[in-house]
Amino acid sequence: MAEVKLIASSLSLFCTRIEWALKLKGVEYEYIEEDLRNKSPLLLNYNPVHKKVPVLVYNGKPIAESLIVLEYIEETWKDSPLLPEDPYEKAMARFWAKFADEKCLLGAFDACRAEGDEKEKAIETAIESFSFLEMQIGRTKYFGGEHIGYLDLALGWIPYWLNVMEEVGCMKLVDAQRFPLLHRWAEDFIETPVIKECLPPRQKTVEYFTASINYLRSLATSKQ
Amino acid sequence: MAEVKLIASSLSLFCTRIEWALKLKGVEYEYIEEDLRNKSPLLLNYNPVHKKVPVLVYNGKPIAESLIVLEYIEETWKDSPLLPEDPYEKAMARFWAKFADEKCLLGAFDACRAEGDEKEKAIETAIESFSFLEMQIGRTKYFGGEHIGYLDLALGWIPYWLNVMEEVGCMKLVDAQRFPLLHRWAEDFIETPVIKECLPPRQKTVEYFTASINYLRSLATSKQ
Repeated sequence: MAEVKLIASSLSLFCTRIEWALKLKGVEYEYIEEDLRNKSPLLLNYNPVHKKVPVLVYNGKPIAESLIVLEYIEETWKDSPLLPEDPYEKAMARFWAKFADEKCLLGAFDACRAEGDEKEKAIETAIESFSFLEMQIGRTKYFGGEHIGYLDLALGWIPYWLNVMEEVGCMKLVDAQRFPLLHRWAEDFIETPVIKECLPPRQKTVEYFTASINYLRSLATSKQ
Repeated sequence: MAEVKLIASSLSLFCTRIEWALKLKGVEYEYIEEDLRNKSPLLLNYNPVHKKVPVLVYNGKPIAESLIVLEYIEETWKDSPLLPEDPYEKAMARFWAKFADEKCLLGAFDACRAEGDEKEKAIETAIESFSFLEMQIGRTKYFGGEHIGYLDLALGWIPYWLNVMEEVGCMKLVDAQRFPLLHRWAEDFIETPVIKECLPPRQKTVEYFTASINYLRSLATSKQ
């Protein structure tokens, strides 16, 4: 039995973050694919609070919430550090990772789902959030410096899943003209072999997002 | 000029967390009260993203988001540690702090604000979330062991601000009968001198919450 298990869904951007971190650290793990439409007793046992993936299980102890799992991986396997040592730099990485999850990712999702009059406003709000990220890119290749780090992994959905959301939502949020630095970073990041090899098949990801968005829209309609 | 400044609002539970941490660590700081109805250029300059308190400024560098500030304080001033060293224990403290902010605090706020048919359901949801916290209390005096730690500070709104929300929202969420362990912890926590001395005047806190809830209700009504 493997010491490290990852209960995950291959289409989930939150799970791929963890796969990337484990691979960058050279940690071997057993990957357990979860069927999110029919959740397993294993998942419900290991994450009874949120009942969500990813869950990392190490020596029988489960850890959930992807950004918390990333920090746990960083502290448990110290090779190839993902976070800077300086407390201020570390606080900044955490700040922008949280910001990106709460404002950019949710903003993109809202814009993807929105219809009619609300769509334009939702797109504008999302673009405003991405502008803050554009301003954070310095002269280094990655957010983490010359190597991929915690913040790159936290933002790693931008070069792939965002593009899927843009297709499903018939919109464009991050283009090369408006966000040249973010765009260049995204291209560099996604072309890194260890990053590329964990990406799910595009068509399946599009189908999954389309189904999710349609479901949420039907819920919204039935409430009206 | 003080090296450490805290831009804060004395009625905000997110700010009091930071005051507690600084006092427990013995860090001297300059406290700068912010008028949230008329935000200062200082705040807008130091936290242009969220425009919210608290902001900790150390040697001219600002850090925002209270749980991130707590971690920064822990890493910068190492005396009287707030977080356990063990990566798994640390992950658990972070997990429950995030859970309490997202589920218990927002749940209590939703229940406080809700009216009519929605209120009962909102109260039930909030109580369900607090039940998870009740199960986390072990045999130690505090969540952090025998000394107050990061998770105690993150949950520190429960013994004081929750009671204010309960009064304003005409409801009871955490009572001694249903949550004996959480209730005992809350009493121990709030009676600690360094904790007690940072609490805002109760009547002002009640007035502030009442005004906030009325404002949110008026917004909800105008949208209908």
